[in-house]
Amino acid sequence: MLQDSRRSSVLSGKSDELGEGWRSPITRRVFLVSSAVLAGTMMTSASASPQGTETMYGLISKVDVVSGQRDALVSILLEGVAGMPGCLSYVVANDPENPDAIWITEVWDSQASHDASLSLPSVQDAIAQGGPMIAGFSERIVTAPVGGHGLTS
Amino acid sequence: MLQDSRRSSVLSGKSDELGEGWRSPITRRVFLVSSAVLAGTMMTSASASPQGTETMYGLISKVDVVSGQRDALVSILLEGVAGMPGCLSYVVANDPENPDAIWITEVWDSQASHDASLSLPSVQDAIAQGGPMIAGFSERIVTAPVGGHGLTS
Repeated sequence: MLQDSRRSSVLSGKSDELGEGWRSPITRRVFLVSSAVLAGTMMTSASASPQGTETMYGLISKVDVVSGQRDALVSILLEGVAGMPGCLSYVVANDPENPDAIWITEVWDSQASHDASLSLPSVQDAIAQGGPMIAGFSERIVTAPVGGHGLTS
Repeated sequence: MLQDSRRSSVLSGKSDELGEGWRSPITRRVFLVSSAVLAGTMMTSASASPQGTETMYGLISKVDVVSGQRDALVSILLEGVAGMPGCLSYVVANDPENPDAIWITEVWDSQASHDASLSLPSVQDAIAQGGPMIAGFSERIVTAPVGGHGLTS
């Protein structure tokens, strides 16, 4: 059920934006994946719609974790994503059937807020710490949230 | 990526609990699916763990909607699921790539709360109204939420 087009849009970042230290394809891929997890950023995302017409932006991700590192990664995620502007919901869950997988569900007030979160210092710290614990993505689904309970800024 | 074991556990309800009016397999299936969506109930769910040791309970569902009925179903869902005891998050989202699909992400303080929600009058009303608009499930994933932002009772 994995949509390859969605996954590939996450993994195909602009390498020239990554700065120093991303010398191997594997390292670069981990960075891109972890950036997307931690900041919820689509590297190929379009610019936001005009002010006042923005819709909420959602992500549902299944992250494959390096074996034995799940608890550590979850802790880093929960610390790193607090207080992100425009983040209405960010829930980290263990997969009950796979000890090396987590699910992350996110709701943002706009795609622009979600994209901007990548540059937050707390997110940058989380990327640095958590990136090596991420093996890859199994699912990456973009949604357009409409409403519900538990959406708080 | 669909886990058949998870899906079948949703669809295999106890038909003798359904009362009157569920005469055809299709109708029964729609009821079971819509019950699961609206109340987040697994018909085959086990009883809750001992008090004080319960963990949060999460669901990620992709619902296939009868063509043209998505907005109507979303409205019913958003009205029907307000104020459910133990519900920490319940977000309804459109699928940007499929006009006949929605995603529902849920977090409950326990599986027991989630199971109990099925009997709420508001949820019963939503089942009655929204059930015929639901064509089926494409995804049904159980998670064990650990924490995050936007979990509110």
